[in-house]
Amino acid sequence: MIQKYVFGQPVNTDAVVLDIPESQEEFSVMELTESDGIRLCCRMEEEDVVYGLGEQVRGINKRGFSYISYAEDDSIHIESRHSLYGAHNFLVLNRRNQKENPDGSRSFGIFVDDPGKVVFDVGETKRDQLVIQAGGDCVIYVIEGEGMKEIVKQFRRLIGQSYLPPKWAFGYQQSRWGYQNEEDVREVVKGHHDRGIPLEAVYLDIDYMEAYKDFTVDEKKFPEFKSFVGEMKGRGVHLVPIIDAGVKIEKGYPVYEEGVRNHYFCKDENGEDFVAAVWPGRVHFPDVLNPEARAWFGGKYEILMEQGIDGFWNDMNEPAIFYSEKNLKKVMEEVISLKDENLDIDSYFHLTGIVAGLANNQEDYKSFYHNVDGVKLRHDKVHNLYGFNMTRAAAEAFGRIAPDKRTLLFSRSSYTGMHRYGGIWTGDNESWWSHILLSIQQMPSLNMCGILYTGSDIGGFASDTTEDLLMRWLEAAMFTPLMRNHSAKGTRRQEVYQFEHIEDFRNIIRMRYGLVPYIYSEYMKAALKDEMYFRPVAFDYPEDSFAYQVEDQLMVGESVMIAPVYVQNAKGRYVYLPEEMRMIRMRSLEDLTSQVIEKGCHYIGMELNELVIFVKKNHVLPLAVLENEVLTTADLAEADIKWIGFVEEPVEYVFYDDDGISGSCVPEKDWRKVTVRKTDLVY
Amino acid sequence: MIQKYVFGQPVNTDAVVLDIPESQEEFSVMELTESDGIRLCCRMEEEDVVYGLGEQVRGINKRGFSYISYAEDDSIHIESRHSLYGAHNFLVLNRRNQKENPDGSRSFGIFVDDPGKVVFDVGETKRDQLVIQAGGDCVIYVIEGEGMKEIVKQFRRLIGQSYLPPKWAFGYQQSRWGYQNEEDVREVVKGHHDRGIPLEAVYLDIDYMEAYKDFTVDEKKFPEFKSFVGEMKGRGVHLVPIIDAGVKIEKGYPVYEEGVRNHYFCKDENGEDFVAAVWPGRVHFPDVLNPEARAWFGGKYEILMEQGIDGFWNDMNEPAIFYSEKNLKKVMEEVISLKDENLDIDSYFHLTGIVAGLANNQEDYKSFYHNVDGVKLRHDKVHNLYGFNMTRAAAEAFGRIAPDKRTLLFSRSSYTGMHRYGGIWTGDNESWWSHILLSIQQMPSLNMCGILYTGSDIGGFASDTTEDLLMRWLEAAMFTPLMRNHSAKGTRRQEVYQFEHIEDFRNIIRMRYGLVPYIYSEYMKAALKDEMYFRPVAFDYPEDSFAYQVEDQLMVGESVMIAPVYVQNAKGRYVYLPEEMRMIRMRSLEDLTSQVIEKGCHYIGMELNELVIFVKKNHVLPLAVLENEVLTTADLAEADIKWIGFVEEPVEYVFYDDDGISGSCVPEKDWRKVTVRKTDLVY
Repeated sequence: MIQKYVFGQPVNTDAVVLDIPESQEEFSVMELTESDGIRLCCRMEEEDVVYGLGEQVRGINKRGFSYISYAEDDSIHIESRHSLYGAHNFLVLNRRNQKENPDGSRSFGIFVDDPGKVVFDVGETKRDQLVIQAGGDCVIYVIEGEGMKEIVKQFRRLIGQSYLPPKWAFGYQQSRWGYQNEEDVREVVKGHHDRGIPLEAVYLDIDYMEAYKDFTVDEKKFPEFKSFVGEMKGRGVHLVPIIDAGVKIEKGYPVYEEGVRNHYFCKDENGEDFVAAVWPGRVHFPDVLNPEARAWFGGKYEILMEQGIDGFWNDMNEPAIFYSEKNLKKVMEEVISLKDENLDIDSYFHLTGIVAGLANNQEDYKSFYHNVDGVKLRHDKVHNLYGFNMTRAAAEAFGRIAPDKRTLLFSRSSYTGMHRYGGIWTGDNESWWSHILLSIQQMPSLNMCGILYTGSDIGGFASDTTEDLLMRWLEAAMFTPLMRNHSAKGTRRQEVYQFEHIEDFRNIIRMRYGLVPYIYSEYMKAALKDEMYFRPVAFDYPEDSFAYQVEDQLMVGESVMIAPVYVQNAKGRYVYLPEEMRMIRMRSLEDLTSQVIEKGCHYIGMELNELVIFVKKNHVLPLAVLENEVLTTADLAEADIKWIGFVEEPVEYVFYDDDGISGSCVPEKDWRKVTVRKTDLVY
Repeated sequence: MIQKYVFGQPVNTDAVVLDIPESQEEFSVMELTESDGIRLCCRMEEEDVVYGLGEQVRGINKRGFSYISYAEDDSIHIESRHSLYGAHNFLVLNRRNQKENPDGSRSFGIFVDDPGKVVFDVGETKRDQLVIQAGGDCVIYVIEGEGMKEIVKQFRRLIGQSYLPPKWAFGYQQSRWGYQNEEDVREVVKGHHDRGIPLEAVYLDIDYMEAYKDFTVDEKKFPEFKSFVGEMKGRGVHLVPIIDAGVKIEKGYPVYEEGVRNHYFCKDENGEDFVAAVWPGRVHFPDVLNPEARAWFGGKYEILMEQGIDGFWNDMNEPAIFYSEKNLKKVMEEVISLKDENLDIDSYFHLTGIVAGLANNQEDYKSFYHNVDGVKLRHDKVHNLYGFNMTRAAAEAFGRIAPDKRTLLFSRSSYTGMHRYGGIWTGDNESWWSHILLSIQQMPSLNMCGILYTGSDIGGFASDTTEDLLMRWLEAAMFTPLMRNHSAKGTRRQEVYQFEHIEDFRNIIRMRYGLVPYIYSEYMKAALKDEMYFRPVAFDYPEDSFAYQVEDQLMVGESVMIAPVYVQNAKGRYVYLPEEMRMIRMRSLEDLTSQVIEKGCHYIGMELNELVIFVKKNHVLPLAVLENEVLTTADLAEADIKWIGFVEEPVEYVFYDDDGISGSCVPEKDWRKVTVRKTDLVY
């Protein structure tokens, strides 16, 4: 049951798709105070668990920290970071002993539809207190139901069906900020193909553009872009260019000129186009909250689609700001005023502070405006909608430009609702072992909030990777829909063929392709049925008194549990089995062994080059057996489907498959029931 | 066996105390190349483990990363940080299967006595390769022996006996950057005492000084410092002031004037006193590498000792530099030159880079000089000796000023050899759960390098702590010799009485006092016998094929294994027992239960307010039973000693105790053999 409460005069965020009447009942799941906005408060019992909040740091259980929904481009994802790039204001308080609660308090989900800053203090200030602080103008949805899955499913219905990517988006993808030109890309493709390593896409980071201008291609680097895109596609490789939020201010650049002429850019307090600086230097921000401007900006993607591009990633759309013209001027004046001072320590810290504070300055977010249906909205009040609507701009345009096919699209910044238009990647992480764990923990939280197409930068974006880190990360990301190796300029090269044990990497990536039938089937079913592809173990075993503590294992699709290694030099790890399962150990698609493991805690050895998965009893997975060389998901059409799993009695598996590209899915045809017997299994 | 190899013209660092003749044998444990300094290289087998390197990030097994010995004040101790505050160039390559190695290669320890930058690539670049890159002028010691403990012990004999602190330094200590004056300190003491929480010391961070001038006390804040020190001592509380490396440039300030007059400060390339800025603004650095200047600077501690002070912490002695006068001038000029530019992105990053790069700039370290026995040494070549010699300055002076007693002394920066003069704390960590684990992992590495008196900032220095983080951290630090709660200005207050469950905190700190007899006994034995107080589990169980993988448990003293919880919301953890042990669960000193647990992997529940320890078979610990209120270690003299442990047959324990303060230790009197029978145990 969903109840809707409206406070003040909320902006329509388009986060939800169901039109629900306002509740006539009193707001009762939390104590509500209206002062300085909306403050909600309730007690958490010792055993209660809080799930959700999408893209944030820390564990699956969000207790013990404060999270701030305010999209922020800060690449150091340390434990004390309160905001990342997205804002997903949905959480569920799981009252684990609700039957015994004297006051009858039950589990509930809450979604705070407020695109400005919202703070979730999940027991940071007081261990047993959940406090939510929102603005005064917002809509709050309270969801109650039988168990976690049911509450989440109701929320997912409320916010609408998740984005469906093309099947090729489930292949292995390679990215690096720094690939400059055709030759660089060819070398990367060759690097994989020469060693028989499948590769589905190569990403183009900001360097492909001419002077960082959106929707341009630098002709010096890519003299014949269209034919190069075709050449790569001939090798099975999609090129995926980045699109940034800021439009370069440059006379004669059509996107700039049109935007100025039609008032499609965000304005400052004087009605002038707001000037910030990002990669191209000075830019304006397209006012993607304005439907007309959104349609215009989205339409520009066609420039690249006409050249054969069928996938994009939207970046810098928190929006990130290196500096605003206004603030830079102020800071420079202050610095100059300090010139002849005998700089004392306070002045010194002031100096370093104001210079460091040029980027993503909170005051800048208060100094520009959107125009939505004639209403002027100050940016900071709707800050979290920017990335959402930039991505929506693209997706809505794809619906016009290429209505019959699915286009790959994901974004850095997001807000609830954007999951209908595209996915996200989890932003600029680091080559840290702790970020493998973080990426595992983020998956179910994102899935709860509708974001199914997602993954982290495998190997780590910033700082130098190592061979073992990359290998463990690939294994941990074996089932993430987006499986992309991405690294920053200036870091150690981390394409898998840069290392010594290339055969191991090849095996690991081939295993991914072997598993794509399962991954795709389970992804599509989850998306079409508003379910979670990645789930906390406790969601599948709600009565298990230990499962709720498990923070480093996930359920994936209907059959699998994963328990990746995320500690350097470890040769295995502890795993909790909530029931008897079959453990399948794969060194390659041709080298599988399996063993039934009983319920309980176990230490399981896992060598660096091994993938270990656990299959629930009476569950199976389709596995593509790659007789011929497979370099892309398209090659899978030729592969035999074999079955692996844990079968005592014949098992029925609903196997979703389709052509991988058509825009609409036809359940009758594509949802195929397969019966698998013990004798069908391969090992 | 220790072999010594001399390369080039090394500076005498005073790291070692044994005079060993140069080896006549060829250097053979690693492949040696002399080009661009000394490069050592060897292969590591898959199962080999590398231990050591003292204060660094990452695990007990150092494999998989590069570590740079170059003392650095950077407070964000993330996984990709290559240097912390100290430089400890000793590691042991443990060849786990040495019997089977075809080339007969055996485990060895190596100590690179080079006070400049040394890089240890422990399998970062190539997983199976250990590479050490040192300068061309250094002494290298190679140590071989039977097993890890024996190799470490030889190294420890080489570098001399570890510092002996007074017994009160093992009590619970409270610190916070921000305590301003008498009233603040009184409030902290009262905050503990009113709730019956023991407290041994309160630290005075930089604010106690007059304008951050070393060896001054601000009379506005502490109008009668000497009597205030006495007042606090009357309550059993020692005041421990901070001393910074930089001496404020201020006419009339005697330390400054004397230093200038006698040429006791480091000089720039023109022979002028080098000007840097730290807390007081512009400062000179005492040239503590120069014996005369060192004696002079050390003598200044007497100013505070005369007022009753008997403990110090030396800070900012990497030395940290906020900016140098010369570089600031250059940066300001560059910034001003950008004033009227239409700042493009390169210029912007240049601007933010040069301003951020003012602090701890590598060029600054190349632009000042030490004078050692008339020889001019450029700072960067001997950089890592600064903190060592500042601390040595103090300790050598204590030997003159207060020869009959032990004075508390520890430092932020250090180099091998400094362990003879004082301890270290592990610097400015964060209120991160991962930093509990880091602090556990640093302990054995530091102990290997002789640093026994050490501990981390409990609760975390920077960012906001939470009640559960602080409680788990106190439990994890139950046995660290330095048990200090320390936090930064501007963070959440984290004295234990600021939280809700004060009774739990009181119990935990009282447990510490109950355990002080064991902690002190084991610390002193380790120090006097050149052994390790904290050891990796594998050091005690070298034949165990699993123990070498254990990264989050430690052996402490001769009887105990600890396995602290370092994950938020966890209600227990996995523990590996290399043999049958007795698990003792303590909720308070009065509420103990115990249970024998068999060898192997176990999940052990550990509630937030519980201390769980494991005792080896036929081992015991003395436990002080606190009948009366105990507020300091001095009160322990009255306590009864009871015994806890795992006793089948009568067990003999060597119980070290002394008056806790005398400078010299008398083994005959203080090393008491006690026989403990099963019936002596208390539960």
